[in-house]
Amino acid sequence: MNPSPFSSGPSLRHKSMRRRSQAPIPIKKPHDVIPPIGEALRIIPLGGVEEIGKNMTVVEMGNDIIVMDAGIHFSDDDTPGIDYILPNVKYLEERKDRIRALVITHGHLDHIGAIPYLIGKLGNPPIYTREFGALLIKKRQAEFPHLPPLDIRIVDADDKSIPISPNFKVRFFGLTHSIPDSTGIIIETPYGDIVNTGDVRVENTNGEVAEKEIEYWKMFKDRKVTLFMMDSTGIDKPGFSPSEASILKNIDGIIKDAPGRIIIATFASQAERIIEFLKSAKRYEKKVFIEGRSMKTNIDIIKHLNLTDTSHIMPVEDIEKYPPNKVMMIATGAQGEEFAALMRMANKTHKQIRLQRSDTIVLSSSVIPGNDKSVEKLKDNLFRHDARIITYLDSDVHTSGHGKRGELEWIHKQISYKYFMPIHGSHFRLKMHAELAANLGCPRENIIVPENGSIIEISDSGNKFVKLPEKAPSDDMVVEGLSIGDIPEVVIRDRKMLAADGIFVIIALVNIRNGRLKKSPDIIARGFVYLRESQELLSEARNIIKHSIEKTTIGSNPINFDVAKNMVTEDVSRFLFQKTAKKPIVIPVILGV
Amino acid sequence: MNPSPFSSGPSLRHKSMRRRSQAPIPIKKPHDVIPPIGEALRIIPLGGVEEIGKNMTVVEMGNDIIVMDAGIHFSDDDTPGIDYILPNVKYLEERKDRIRALVITHGHLDHIGAIPYLIGKLGNPPIYTREFGALLIKKRQAEFPHLPPLDIRIVDADDKSIPISPNFKVRFFGLTHSIPDSTGIIIETPYGDIVNTGDVRVENTNGEVAEKEIEYWKMFKDRKVTLFMMDSTGIDKPGFSPSEASILKNIDGIIKDAPGRIIIATFASQAERIIEFLKSAKRYEKKVFIEGRSMKTNIDIIKHLNLTDTSHIMPVEDIEKYPPNKVMMIATGAQGEEFAALMRMANKTHKQIRLQRSDTIVLSSSVIPGNDKSVEKLKDNLFRHDARIITYLDSDVHTSGHGKRGELEWIHKQISYKYFMPIHGSHFRLKMHAELAANLGCPRENIIVPENGSIIEISDSGNKFVKLPEKAPSDDMVVEGLSIGDIPEVVIRDRKMLAADGIFVIIALVNIRNGRLKKSPDIIARGFVYLRESQELLSEARNIIKHSIEKTTIGSNPINFDVAKNMVTEDVSRFLFQKTAKKPIVIPVILGV
Repeated sequence: MNPSPFSSGPSLRHKSMRRRSQAPIPIKKPHDVIPPIGEALRIIPLGGVEEIGKNMTVVEMGNDIIVMDAGIHFSDDDTPGIDYILPNVKYLEERKDRIRALVITHGHLDHIGAIPYLIGKLGNPPIYTREFGALLIKKRQAEFPHLPPLDIRIVDADDKSIPISPNFKVRFFGLTHSIPDSTGIIIETPYGDIVNTGDVRVENTNGEVAEKEIEYWKMFKDRKVTLFMMDSTGIDKPGFSPSEASILKNIDGIIKDAPGRIIIATFASQAERIIEFLKSAKRYEKKVFIEGRSMKTNIDIIKHLNLTDTSHIMPVEDIEKYPPNKVMMIATGAQGEEFAALMRMANKTHKQIRLQRSDTIVLSSSVIPGNDKSVEKLKDNLFRHDARIITYLDSDVHTSGHGKRGELEWIHKQISYKYFMPIHGSHFRLKMHAELAANLGCPRENIIVPENGSIIEISDSGNKFVKLPEKAPSDDMVVEGLSIGDIPEVVIRDRKMLAADGIFVIIALVNIRNGRLKKSPDIIARGFVYLRESQELLSEARNIIKHSIEKTTIGSNPINFDVAKNMVTEDVSRFLFQKTAKKPIVIPVILGV
Repeated sequence: MNPSPFSSGPSLRHKSMRRRSQAPIPIKKPHDVIPPIGEALRIIPLGGVEEIGKNMTVVEMGNDIIVMDAGIHFSDDDTPGIDYILPNVKYLEERKDRIRALVITHGHLDHIGAIPYLIGKLGNPPIYTREFGALLIKKRQAEFPHLPPLDIRIVDADDKSIPISPNFKVRFFGLTHSIPDSTGIIIETPYGDIVNTGDVRVENTNGEVAEKEIEYWKMFKDRKVTLFMMDSTGIDKPGFSPSEASILKNIDGIIKDAPGRIIIATFASQAERIIEFLKSAKRYEKKVFIEGRSMKTNIDIIKHLNLTDTSHIMPVEDIEKYPPNKVMMIATGAQGEEFAALMRMANKTHKQIRLQRSDTIVLSSSVIPGNDKSVEKLKDNLFRHDARIITYLDSDVHTSGHGKRGELEWIHKQISYKYFMPIHGSHFRLKMHAELAANLGCPRENIIVPENGSIIEISDSGNKFVKLPEKAPSDDMVVEGLSIGDIPEVVIRDRKMLAADGIFVIIALVNIRNGRLKKSPDIIARGFVYLRESQELLSEARNIIKHSIEKTTIGSNPINFDVAKNMVTEDVSRFLFQKTAKKPIVIPVILGV
């Protein structure tokens, strides 16, 4: 890089300086001393109430604990190098002998993804789930062959209640989300029913609710619910979502009319929609080709459960054997994921498929926050092929699995509950959801907006509803490579500093007899500036290092290496900042020989 | 710098490995040999046609060059540590004696932000701009006091054409965007008019275009345009945007009815809207308090130009002197920027202002892609105060400065042009815009979708329109700290690796007489794992280092340090990956003593 004409020096307002100062490391409190549970019924959301993801809610009474869901949250720029974020389960680890069950609402990763990492810490309790979820859990577990087998117990929705322990029975009920076997959970307790919807939407046509929804929810007509907990993901969007039926009808029309091949990209997790795509393909006598590992996993499960005819699915190697207008592909990659099938097609690195003008590509998904840039890149690459591209902006080809405010409101009206606790969402969503419940008539003192780790107690035979001042441990836990543990704050901070300004390591050998450097110091820098074009900077830095160290070491006996290190770090940091306005991590290694 | 070769290691599927492999450094081609311009009229978009940002378009004929706009693009996760991205101006640097003018469409940073960094490289040509832009350019330039003064020439829209050089006259015309004095540019050439809209929208009410727009565009009724270039930012959204008038009416109502203080956060760049907020406050006898550096800059300009009454703006220190329902604040930070005023209020670090239940907060902005997470965090923090919060999701409180497809179509219909070139947008937007033009009747051979650096020539007295096979240099240039130059690919790649897996430096002293390590090797690691909790790993690593180095060095005379370094790098990298599934940059320093 060319040196710049701007010599205003270190007082320049500079991004990386701001970045530096913005990363205070939170001081971890020791665990609160949590009072004994006594006669109370305790509900603790361990995850999913300060984010959308890593869902886990605990219900505890006497000697019994039921855990609902065990989800992961994906890492982002705030946690570089981290693979997944997990709910903190220290509260459960300390009480694992009381855990009677892990109950799963549905098979999405934000509800089941943490099972391989956490099930051992929970003492391998039995897992209650409906069939589709069970198969997804097993598929995922198969990637961790060293773990003990899971004790999975498949249950049906609307079965009779399942006795779990003296204090708890569990009952599943069907509802609409975006994956087969989506379920709400009723935990029957001595203080009444605790209901958790899990993720939920309401199928509707312009706000008119579908018959099946009325079927699903009518069981609550004469049921008294003590505590109602509900998904808040879509609360910030007013109104009702487009109906899934209309989406499917639109895409069915697109499939029917496609002049050439049709390629539909969606989330593999949209299993219900994928089933409908398979039906459409059958209807128009198209062969189906599946691309993407997670898509194949879901298709395997659909086949296994015989949820629809899959006889027209063909191996992708055979794609050229069929005329283009008989070819339909279902692929992952609608979010622009780097190595997903659609991206490989878009950037011409896919083995079998070259896009062409007559192809129709449907992105049947919205853009997940954070993925904007990669989706833009995907679209750029797709448009280079002159194929026809249809996105949700132009046509109703996607609707969310999470109900908008109107849908959530409708569900509230189906249930007569005493207490309400919004879950599944960032804080502002929970607050908005609480506001909705209050507007619908729930007394404000009967609503609690929790945080991760909040301990909510129902006591006095169900007549008291409070949040304790104490909290269960709730700092994120993380999966990184082979390790699972606390979030490594210091390491994360270093990574952010390294990403912005790099590192500058100084190695100096000091002759302990006279305090002089044995030779010119070595410098190792990474991520700082392009050294090959900064020879002058390096040679000035070497001079400064030599003088800075020798100032301390010459004539000292014994040499105080710590003082020398501090001095050289300070001198070099100042010099580098003056010259570049960058603040690399400076590390001195001074060896006496 | 030591090389860091890497052995293939275990085959675990792992995020950081994927990240590693996805960063091939593009091989830079030497510049194309660009043929002489001859009799042609040349148009070269140097930036803004593969992204939204860093706009710059060159028009060249004979010995004359006019440059339109000089914008920056903000850095993101793809370019850690970089401050800004600039258009590549090597083509212009090589021809700077021919540059007759820099012409500015309006004062937003994606159109003027690069001036301090690039104007010298362009030979300090005169800058033609309308007044509001001129003031913003001067404010920005004031931050670079060592630079020579700018030669700014203020022009009015709809003035007569300004003669610039033998081949070129320039004429400005007014249009609607979101900042005062937004301008389209007509360059009159021997081959006819070249028109560049700059950023543009069309004020309308449910698709019915406002009278002022008809006024703006009627000048094209009997004008023949050779080449039309137009903003493509909003092309992917069908229909018309909500009218600015309706937004202002909504917010006026909110201001009027606010029971307590009202705090409006918007982009400082929304200067036109800010003027209307000031008028509303006047109407309801509220005092106005301005927060945020960029907001204050824009207010200063509004004052200076006397664009509206500002006598009710009070210093923020006095805010407590007025009853809450007489207080209105206009602040930056609607995107959740870490240190912006609204964020400081939200997280209780603002000096004067503590949010309270009776406050009304309006986020008069949409969420810019990439800012989703910080806006979520902002909303979380705001909702902790129980204030009333109004966003664009719930009420029409924001509309974009960039027209949606319906608006762009309307503009196309106002202009009779021969050739069309979409600008301002990522590739897929340009393609969609080209499609729109074709659907409106422009022959496809008269449309060119350019890339950054594309050289487009109009020749044969305006009858030929081609894109040359050669390109002007177009690799991004960047501002980082005090330097301006090529994007430092190697450094960026290192930063990404450091951010994901950190660095592991080994320092070993070898006794050159016997090849043995003088003492246990030193290890410096940053961003890798939390070392204090990894003592066992470190001690194993020290053993491996010792054995690995001594394998090579014992009995060798002279010692081959390169072989020892390669060996220890490979052994240690493999060991660390096996133990952690992480791949830090391993750097060995082996010193003979």
